[in-house]
Amino acid sequence: KKKKKKKKKIMARAVLTRVEKFSAAHRLWSPTLSDAENLSTFGPCTRTHGHNYVLSVSVAGRIDPATGMVINLTTIKALVTDRVVAVLDHHHIDEDVPWFGAAGRPSTAENIALWAFLSLRGALPAGVDVVAVRLDETDKNTAVIRAE
Amino acid sequence: KKKKKKKKKIMARAVLTRVEKFSAAHRLWSPTLSDAENLSTFGPCTRTHGHNYVLSVSVAGRIDPATGMVINLTTIKALVTDRVVAVLDHHHIDEDVPWFGAAGRPSTAENIALWAFLSLRGALPAGVDVVAVRLDETDKNTAVIRAE
Amino acid sequence: KKKKKKKKKIMARAVLTRVEKFSAAHRLWSPTLSDAENLSTFGPCTRTHGHNYVLSVSVAGRIDPATGMVINLTTIKALVTDRVVAVLDHHHIDEDVPWFGAAGRPSTAENIALWAFLSLRGALPAGVDVVAVRLDETDKNTAVIRAE
Amino acid sequence: KKKKKKKKKIMARAVLTRVEKFSAAHRLWSPTLSDAENLSTFGPCTRTHGHNYVLSVSVAGRIDPATGMVINLTTIKALVTDRVVAVLDHHHIDEDVPWFGAAGRPSTAENIALWAFLSLRGALPAGVDVVAVRLDETDKNTAVIRAE
Amino acid sequence: KKKKKKKKKIMARAVLTRVEKFSAAHRLWSPTLSDAENLSTFGPCTRTHGHNYVLSVSVAGRIDPATGMVINLTTIKALVTDRVVAVLDHHHIDEDVPWFGAAGRPSTAENIALWAFLSLRGALPAGVDVVAVRLDETDKNTAVIRAE
Amino acid sequence: KKKKKKKKKIMARAVLTRVEKFSAAHRLWSPTLSDAENLSTFGPCTRTHGHNYVLSVSVAGRIDPATGMVINLTTIKALVTDRVVAVLDHHHIDEDVPWFGAAGRPSTAENIALWAFLSLRGALPAGVDVVAVRLDETDKNTAVIRAE
Repeated sequence: KKKKKKKKKIMARAVLTRVEKFSAAHRLWSPTLSDAENLSTFGPCTRTHGHNYVLSVSVAGRIDPATGMVINLTTIKALVTDRVVAVLDHHHIDEDVPWFGAAGRPSTAENIALWAFLSLRGALPAGVDVVAVRLDETDKNTAVIRAE
Repeated sequence: KKKKKKKKKIMARAVLTRVEKFSAAHRLWSPTLSDAENLSTFGPCTRTHGHNYVLSVSVAGRIDPATGMVINLTTIKALVTDRVVAVLDHHHIDEDVPWFGAAGRPSTAENIALWAFLSLRGALPAGVDVVAVRLDETDKNTAVIRAE
Repeated sequence: KKKKKKKKKIMARAVLTRVEKFSAAHRLWSPTLSDAENLSTFGPCTRTHGHNYVLSVSVAGRIDPATGMVINLTTIKALVTDRVVAVLDHHHIDEDVPWFGAAGRPSTAENIALWAFLSLRGALPAGVDVVAVRLDETDKNTAVIRAE
Repeated sequence: KKKKKKKKKIMARAVLTRVEKFSAAHRLWSPTLSDAENLSTFGPCTRTHGHNYVLSVSVAGRIDPATGMVINLTTIKALVTDRVVAVLDHHHIDEDVPWFGAAGRPSTAENIALWAFLSLRGALPAGVDVVAVRLDETDKNTAVIRAE
Repeated sequence: KKKKKKKKKIMARAVLTRVEKFSAAHRLWSPTLSDAENLSTFGPCTRTHGHNYVLSVSVAGRIDPATGMVINLTTIKALVTDRVVAVLDHHHIDEDVPWFGAAGRPSTAENIALWAFLSLRGALPAGVDVVAVRLDETDKNTAVIRAE
Repeated sequence: KKKKKKKKKIMARAVLTRVEKFSAAHRLWSPTLSDAENLSTFGPCTRTHGHNYVLSVSVAGRIDPATGMVINLTTIKALVTDRVVAVLDHHHIDEDVPWFGAAGRPSTAENIALWAFLSLRGALPAGVDVVAVRLDETDKNTAVIRAE
């Protein structure tokens, strides 16, 4: 009976999500497409514009009985701020972040979420995993990358 | 090494969500229930009323390295608008959409989400799947249909 | 000096706003317009549809030093619920509320806000005034009636 | 052919989410940590403060063809109100709810979501399961407990 | 008595607000300031970034008894779209709109709201006035221009 | 003609609003009321609970042609943070802020907004005035103090 209780405690898992916002400029333009293809694919997004992006980083792990936490929110906040927000906020994503423009990757919501996921994955303490990164480009368009 | 990189690129998958809104009237009334059962089951919802519905359609697929997209948002937007929003917006769902009233299906949030899911499933290009349709009836009531 | 302090306390005024929501059906149709005029004026709104309306009732008065309140929120809540929400929620506004359909008034956001304002004005205790009634029909369309 | 159709109807499953809000006070303090550890772990959260919590309870089941419902929203609303909201709303969570303070569990978002999950799990009719409980502590911090 | 009633009808005034959104890039840089002054005044805003702007245009007038409207929302929508949204959406405000960069006006929220106000003022039919233009740059920063 | 233009520039006024949030605990209890009166007036609010408060500080002034600003947002942000948020955030308002509990003032939304208004009024540079302080206690209850 005791063993069972103990096991239940150890098994209590939660997903914790931290939301941070940043304001950035970008345009969609792919070096592997012709000018006409770029225009027909990306339309007005080929012009430099910008967004208030909302980034939601979800991590999963067991709840530490001593602290009641999967991970301290100040830790996630610092990681997301340092590795993602500080790099993108008040920047032109394509011009200022080499993973995008210099590497020829269009700064779609999918790719920004993927970059954030790759930037955060592996940065967390043992036992805590980034399970999803969600990026709201507007309140109508959202991309999510999930750990497979 | 090259092979690995290639594989990683191919495996990058994302979920893309498009949100559209529509305003519609409906009432809840089931032909398979008696009047008394309808009233006790649906209460004030048996009277014609309406909502600003929020529809969130989520599709999944790999990110095309050339465009950075799972699918062009203009494609999803057009599909959702044509197949769902144009049919329901500024309409009385039970009276105007045969799948509901004429077929005896109550226009609950669950059923509207299901109808939207069935209307969109199969409409997307190869390699892109509708994985979830979410319908917010109010900011307190939400139904989600997920692809099994 | 004392007198001045006393006066300042008495003069401390605030505006208190209570927000309530209701879901209703309506259509826009004016008996003083021809069918063609109705269609050209109201377009798809001539069809029965509905909204999650958000009603914000603002009252102004001095802050009672004993309670720290302009008026008890439970009082405003009860008034707004009884006189407005209970009449409109889960109803077809034009068919069920005589001030609209039977009297030939189109149930525009302006008119619903006006009706709510007239229904609440004068219902408050002495010294507290309804200064504004705001009605959000959607998150893009809002009407406000202010006390003149 | 008929059989297949019938089966499809029976298999239509949905997730229904009900959102309720409550306002509560709490502080983070763990009896298994020293004062210094509490301060370094929880920082300003060691002081009594409070939140407008948003609780989202998601249940899954098949859609009943007669009612179009997974479960009547009034049933979920009553359960969430009775078992969770009534216990926490306008209370000091650590002082008033024995599962937290008296039992030495810090009232983190993870633990409050876990407590709500445990309080609701098993309360639903046969065939309907609580699949997730989400607790938004602020609009930047969210915890989710999912049924395993 | 009749006269009074008539007068009351004529006097029923309302404020109608239409909300439109656009996504644009900008940077803050003033030609009348030195480089050092620009940096100390505008900080990270001197770098090209962007926002999802929310524009709320409020007009006031009497409610037409025949239509129940101050003005047809389709009219305001068209005006706001043509004169403001089409000019700014998916554009770099400083580079693409002469009133800003070419004229040396920094594209602060205050100035964008002012430009929108000047662009819309006078465009409305007789008896309807633009009384306020509100611009939300983020959900923390808002500028409002009111008709004096 | 020149004079007119110059005058127009000088007269361009705007209202700038900065929004900050804080999480605090409080209870409503008035020393000038009996226990029974407190309970009948404040109900469940007599128990310690808490909120995520949203504070919106609106200031008005002319737009400086050189900077395009009424006032630098970093200045308002710092003032609101130092004088209001730092004092209330993660605190028990009645116990920790002498203007409330020690002085016998109930910490209603009206009084918190009034305290914030008094704390900020006069702190701004010449030519810029605090014209309104708005406090959202929940998304249904809001108090506003306006400069008279």
